[in-house]
Amino acid sequence: MRPSFWILSTGTELAQGRSRDTNSAEIARKLADLGFDVIGISILPDDPEIILAYLQWLQSRNDVTALIMTGGLGPTSDDHTIDVLGRWTGSALIEDPTALRRLEAFARLRRRIDIETARRQVRVLADADVIPNNTGLAPGVLGSVARETQPLWYCALPGVPSEMRPMCDMAIDRLREKIHATPVHRVEFHVYEEPESDFQKTVFNDGALAADALKSDPAFRWGVAAMPGSLKAFFEHETDERVITELQQAVQSHYGERFLHRSVEELLPEWLLEKGITVSFAESCTGGLLAKTITDRAGSSAYFAGSAVTYSNQSKQDLLSVPEGILTTFGAVSEECALAMADGARRAFHADAAVSVTGIAGPDGGTPEKPVGTVYSAIVTANERIAFKLFYPMDRERVREYTTRSILFRLYRFLQKRTGS
Amino acid sequence: MRPSFWILSTGTELAQGRSRDTNSAEIARKLADLGFDVIGISILPDDPEIILAYLQWLQSRNDVTALIMTGGLGPTSDDHTIDVLGRWTGSALIEDPTALRRLEAFARLRRRIDIETARRQVRVLADADVIPNNTGLAPGVLGSVARETQPLWYCALPGVPSEMRPMCDMAIDRLREKIHATPVHRVEFHVYEEPESDFQKTVFNDGALAADALKSDPAFRWGVAAMPGSLKAFFEHETDERVITELQQAVQSHYGERFLHRSVEELLPEWLLEKGITVSFAESCTGGLLAKTITDRAGSSAYFAGSAVTYSNQSKQDLLSVPEGILTTFGAVSEECALAMADGARRAFHADAAVSVTGIAGPDGGTPEKPVGTVYSAIVTANERIAFKLFYPMDRERVREYTTRSILFRLYRFLQKRTGS
Repeated sequence: MRPSFWILSTGTELAQGRSRDTNSAEIARKLADLGFDVIGISILPDDPEIILAYLQWLQSRNDVTALIMTGGLGPTSDDHTIDVLGRWTGSALIEDPTALRRLEAFARLRRRIDIETARRQVRVLADADVIPNNTGLAPGVLGSVARETQPLWYCALPGVPSEMRPMCDMAIDRLREKIHATPVHRVEFHVYEEPESDFQKTVFNDGALAADALKSDPAFRWGVAAMPGSLKAFFEHETDERVITELQQAVQSHYGERFLHRSVEELLPEWLLEKGITVSFAESCTGGLLAKTITDRAGSSAYFAGSAVTYSNQSKQDLLSVPEGILTTFGAVSEECALAMADGARRAFHADAAVSVTGIAGPDGGTPEKPVGTVYSAIVTANERIAFKLFYPMDRERVREYTTRSILFRLYRFLQKRTGS
Repeated sequence: MRPSFWILSTGTELAQGRSRDTNSAEIARKLADLGFDVIGISILPDDPEIILAYLQWLQSRNDVTALIMTGGLGPTSDDHTIDVLGRWTGSALIEDPTALRRLEAFARLRRRIDIETARRQVRVLADADVIPNNTGLAPGVLGSVARETQPLWYCALPGVPSEMRPMCDMAIDRLREKIHATPVHRVEFHVYEEPESDFQKTVFNDGALAADALKSDPAFRWGVAAMPGSLKAFFEHETDERVITELQQAVQSHYGERFLHRSVEELLPEWLLEKGITVSFAESCTGGLLAKTITDRAGSSAYFAGSAVTYSNQSKQDLLSVPEGILTTFGAVSEECALAMADGARRAFHADAAVSVTGIAGPDGGTPEKPVGTVYSAIVTANERIAFKLFYPMDRERVREYTTRSILFRLYRFLQKRTGS
């Protein structure tokens, strides 16, 4: 059986959604990458009774191998973790001498600190190991409580991410030894422009890729997450790497160029940078989202020249030199307009390639011929011009998100073909 | 006693930390804003046995009034929510006729969908209410299970945020009726460009606004949530409306024009529409985020002409006619460049007013004189030009978000003064 972990964050601000818990997801991912099962993540407010009841309940579950907690190790009166662990495990609380020396040295540097309040946070459990905190002040603890079957391992770490991170690596290393864990084989990939239900049907229901033996193999796992315009999936096997590799190859050869090992938001910038290619955009219905997405990454000025967000017809003429005749004959939401906009964006920004997008994001503005969700896009380079139509009959936010990701994907594949790489 | 909520997200990708659960925090915040206690948030993998055991455990806790679940309502075989709820509550599963009609209509538009696989997601519980999904395909359910004391209410919603959001509002409205949550007196407001810790000190610690009697009044609550460039706060009293109103008035008179009853993202578009004023942008470091934010709302073409996302110096000259001398003398990140960019954007888009933003979002590109987080912005109309400097020494994402919201706020207040309203 795979070791199963539970992750618990404490903090009233987290439980009320006013601060974001980034620790749990980060720890979960670390554990999953090592092939452990994460069978639950919980966030509880800073209430010692609620936390204690939860720990007792976890102890009663024989399917949890280990628990990793973050938060509540600080010096203020709403930090309860060590006290609650003491009550739960029956261990005495003691001060960790190393952490106390660090605190005293720190207090000499920053005179405003009140050491009597602050030393609450150097307390650890007499019956547990100490995980040293080399970044901040509060040490962590790692121990176990007895249970009917095997013991339940637990570890408590500070909530500050920069302190938690190295301490968590240390704690996981120690836990792996204690629970004798072995790693699993895993692949992860992205498929673009494929609905989740179709992926399931193609990969698992229709048999071509899905052997019955595999479906009933308890050592095998798969999962899929829908994202706007794409999906992310994984296959995992506890012992047999070949099964996983073959399955991925089958999916890849089925989906061809729609299959990517990483997301296009990661791949496209790296590739543009490597090839020294610059791009520019002409956006209408995405209203700047295409530009915003490509500039989310630092260093984007090396391959992104700019975007003309031309919401009005007049600005399509003025900034992008779209001929008035195209707008009156075909309308702004047309293949012809998309091509003219892309030409204009390429010239205006002196880019190697340009992409345009013009469509109806809704909820108003749809017609029987061009309902909400109709989007035209064009990609142009010095030598080539292509236009295509997308159709996402969805709400405004999703039309914009799906369109943005589809267009980045198509731009990536288009440019790859043209440069022969 | 205040009603206590538990929030549960399901998804193996979420439990493994491979996708981020944004729903739970969003729902927690909604509930906390309404004055409910959130006493736990959990994420579980797509494993029906784990989910069922958890539901049974929640049912055994008499301190949980209601449970809101998200995820697992999709069409694939790893979507288990309805089946698990059926096993837990003992209710039969039926197809929701409205959702089935929506699915059939959707399938006619997109021929590739396989209706037999897809119709799994229109199943609901015979013994629970249906929460209609007007955005996507899977309906939600809302019901209750018996317990020793009062029943435990539950509601299950899709995991896709754009579907979950309106359905959650609907579900909370219904739950408030079912659990007879008495409405409290409540005010909510926004304060711009004020750090949360300063707000706390000004409003509560320094006594001017904070009576001791109020702090110890169990019927009184307040809360503050930090948002990029602003904060949102609430005051709440279970019985005394006057306390709340007076407190809000004191805060409003202290903060003056930085106090807004609603967010600027809501107020600015309504106001521009009412006044018939058009705006355009010239963006550098925000990379389209300003345009994206104002076009998030439908109907934005009535007041938004467009934005020139000019990432390179060349494009600032070409599209916005920024004189080369300004770029060489003062640099792209300067008051002078911001003014020239705004002038250019007003002319290029024929707008009544234009705003520019040019700065260093980081993590690279900072200098001792202009460190990361330095941003210059200008607002120009036919008669007036102002420029200002913002400084947000933060990470890239936050520099962009704080800048965007500050600039929209300043644009709103600037234009209001000039039009005398």
